[in-house]
Amino acid sequence: MPPSCLATWREISLLESTLSVLGWDEQVMLPPAGQAWRGEQSALLAKLVHERLTNPALLESATAYQAARTDDFGRANAKEMLRRIRRAMRIPGRLVEELAKATSRGIHVWQEARKAGQFSQFLPELEAIVRLKREEADCVGWGETPYDALLDEYEPGCTAKEVDRIFSALGPELSRLIAKAPGKTQLPPQGPYPEEQQKDLGWKVALAFGFNDQAGRLDVSAHPFCSGHGPGDCRITTRYNVSDFTQSFFGILHETGHALYEQGLPTAHAGEPWCVATSLGMHESQSRFWENLIGRSRAFWDWCWPSAKEAFSPVLDGYSKTQLLGYINRIEPSYIRVEADETSYNLHILLRYRMEKAMIEGNLKPCDLPGAWNEEFLKSFGLKVTDDREGCLQDVHWSCGGIGYFPTYTIGNLLSAQLGEAIQKELGNWSDALARGEFQPILAWLREKVHRHGRAKSALEICKASTGRPLDHLALIRHLEKVAAGAY
Amino acid sequence: MPPSCLATWREISLLESTLSVLGWDEQVMLPPAGQAWRGEQSALLAKLVHERLTNPALLESATAYQAARTDDFGRANAKEMLRRIRRAMRIPGRLVEELAKATSRGIHVWQEARKAGQFSQFLPELEAIVRLKREEADCVGWGETPYDALLDEYEPGCTAKEVDRIFSALGPELSRLIAKAPGKTQLPPQGPYPEEQQKDLGWKVALAFGFNDQAGRLDVSAHPFCSGHGPGDCRITTRYNVSDFTQSFFGILHETGHALYEQGLPTAHAGEPWCVATSLGMHESQSRFWENLIGRSRAFWDWCWPSAKEAFSPVLDGYSKTQLLGYINRIEPSYIRVEADETSYNLHILLRYRMEKAMIEGNLKPCDLPGAWNEEFLKSFGLKVTDDREGCLQDVHWSCGGIGYFPTYTIGNLLSAQLGEAIQKELGNWSDALARGEFQPILAWLREKVHRHGRAKSALEICKASTGRPLDHLALIRHLEKVAAGAY
Repeated sequence: MPPSCLATWREISLLESTLSVLGWDEQVMLPPAGQAWRGEQSALLAKLVHERLTNPALLESATAYQAARTDDFGRANAKEMLRRIRRAMRIPGRLVEELAKATSRGIHVWQEARKAGQFSQFLPELEAIVRLKREEADCVGWGETPYDALLDEYEPGCTAKEVDRIFSALGPELSRLIAKAPGKTQLPPQGPYPEEQQKDLGWKVALAFGFNDQAGRLDVSAHPFCSGHGPGDCRITTRYNVSDFTQSFFGILHETGHALYEQGLPTAHAGEPWCVATSLGMHESQSRFWENLIGRSRAFWDWCWPSAKEAFSPVLDGYSKTQLLGYINRIEPSYIRVEADETSYNLHILLRYRMEKAMIEGNLKPCDLPGAWNEEFLKSFGLKVTDDREGCLQDVHWSCGGIGYFPTYTIGNLLSAQLGEAIQKELGNWSDALARGEFQPILAWLREKVHRHGRAKSALEICKASTGRPLDHLALIRHLEKVAAGAY
Repeated sequence: MPPSCLATWREISLLESTLSVLGWDEQVMLPPAGQAWRGEQSALLAKLVHERLTNPALLESATAYQAARTDDFGRANAKEMLRRIRRAMRIPGRLVEELAKATSRGIHVWQEARKAGQFSQFLPELEAIVRLKREEADCVGWGETPYDALLDEYEPGCTAKEVDRIFSALGPELSRLIAKAPGKTQLPPQGPYPEEQQKDLGWKVALAFGFNDQAGRLDVSAHPFCSGHGPGDCRITTRYNVSDFTQSFFGILHETGHALYEQGLPTAHAGEPWCVATSLGMHESQSRFWENLIGRSRAFWDWCWPSAKEAFSPVLDGYSKTQLLGYINRIEPSYIRVEADETSYNLHILLRYRMEKAMIEGNLKPCDLPGAWNEEFLKSFGLKVTDDREGCLQDVHWSCGGIGYFPTYTIGNLLSAQLGEAIQKELGNWSDALARGEFQPILAWLREKVHRHGRAKSALEICKASTGRPLDHLALIRHLEKVAAGAY
């Protein structure tokens, strides 16, 4: 018999992975008329998880477990259980409910406000959400800044101080790179790129990277995502644009990176607290690694270009691999984060991080957000925002309470570059291997150094152990320098 | 606030419909490596349902509810809750577990035994399952025969006495019809019938029947089925055989009939005990109605034939509507139930019913099953069974504990014919309407007389109220007489 806290945790894992199945199904399969009932099904399962997390017997059992288990995995289990139990116990049911209501309304109102380009419509919702998230942070408890209590949900073990340290070094370097961005690149032909061929090409690459098709699948959804439903079942989605194959292509590579991480968690320990991805930042590092470091490199396209040419023949006939490489590595600052290039993307994140942190710390009133956003945007990008749809209304995150989430995107980019340097150092420059389509040694390295640890180590610990130094901005900047110089 | 038993029942409904989602996903979407974890997810949800059903507080609340509510729906709610609660409380956890183990092994061993054609391999499992099901019947309690306690799970309110009354009149009539079966019919061309066209044609008919595509979908699975996941989400599946379009076509019509019933349950009362299909027999009546009474009629094909010709052009060019009607209405007794024609199908069921009832009553030892089966088969069909694969090893039902299930197939056929006569009497002969593809009045009748009642009335009550007389064999025999005479 396992200690009873582990048995309860297995139930929690089963319920949470069932929630993931319901969520995947909702986005990929559910008929529209089924949405209301699906909402109730999910709410009930979430309630059952919360009941288990806040049951005093679990806290008692986890505390006893902590005292009894001094090995690495035992400590990691206890730490993760107590982290989640305390968080769940400290946030009163009343606040959970108010947050659920505020964010469910928030998303709806944000959609309307964005459509209309009216920040004032969204303002009352944003004020309520910021107020409730500050209250949440106070309930959870914090040391230097209430923002830490929110960040901890997405990036356990990381603090705003760490983020500030790295981001403050990163920002000026990004601006420098963007200032010397090369000129316009030539768009690929506008297709048509048949959906079936896009799918086949993306799937071929996913399998070559190491995606286990006996333990996952690829489907279509409006917003591409990766969803792990427990061991042996991790699914990715994409969407197809017949006039631009690069959208689905890099989307599939990105989600494949996420899936490889999930598929690399040690199945035998499924349901144990430590056996989950360590953080969103590390998750994003895996997706960005395969999408950007591998998928936008010249060596990768030495291997992949003939397949792409063949898949879309004769559409790509007048277009060269070199042109494609220029296009997919362009630096072209613009207003919209999700359309941003690899370099300016991080500037988008830094700006959002400063905004949300200031709001949570009470240094920026939600009503002053558009002004502050536009001022900072001009400084960072040299572009003047004249429409909040292209400014502070563009992202869904704040409307659904996801404050503390944004920095994990750039943490992911930083990690991917630093891991990439370590791999190249240990395995030798990967160009020849990529050009032959040999990805197994790289995946094996990631499995060994990152995936198999689950949450037994934090992202920052894994970074230090596997790259020999704490996370910093240097590897990413070196990588982006190369991109800017055309040496992808 | 609803009485607390209804609140608990809503949770039970949410959990059970989540189980249905997991089950659908398992058969349609799940990657193979995800099966073990999926089994655990489903087992946990089943446990949560069982916990709620056997909570003494629910019994107390449902009993108080029964005393307080004397209106029709209140009575129906109380009856259904108490029926399920008592059943769950009377079957000890030990027996539930033993049954789960025996049937999970049973299915596996049955698959192997069938493959090998070795009944002796399966015998120990069958003995265990029959023993446990007899124990289950004793726990639940019974009056005239323990079989009633098992039948009640699938056909609430029906008894073996009722079934015997009808089946004993039906049997000789079926034998008579089969004896004068017409000669061989001409097979349709062997295709190819492209999958896409099969799907389009089947879907067109499903929509014409009234399937709401905003509240359901059509997918592919190895074993076609219909799965209701709560209001607004009822899905059907089929499989495509490129050399025989009639398999997927009648499969889709059949599952559409099931789905129309689910979609016709009153959404506003979803989660209330009475708001479910009244029985498996009534469910089967709806599928058989659309598949057989409508889908195999000449009038229907007056409407559908041009679409089929066009969909599969030029494959059907040398084949006539009259030939197809002869083929899909052939009477051709054979060994295998799932390949049986509309008439001899019921003889298959009658035989299985006698066998399983005798085993549960202790009048037939499992070791004597093959002998008894083969003897009865010779009497009923005039065919000598020489291989148990074509005899008592052909069906999965007993291996998974589904004793009491078989009669619902023929109850469904009987109901469909009796409902069909009532509809034709009330709405006028439907030939002209079908030939124009007008199905709405028929669906409206079924909605009004059958669907909207959910489980507020039993199948036999609905039959009597909507057709003016108790269920009997006459309508089905009249229908099959017509089929035999070519007057479909």
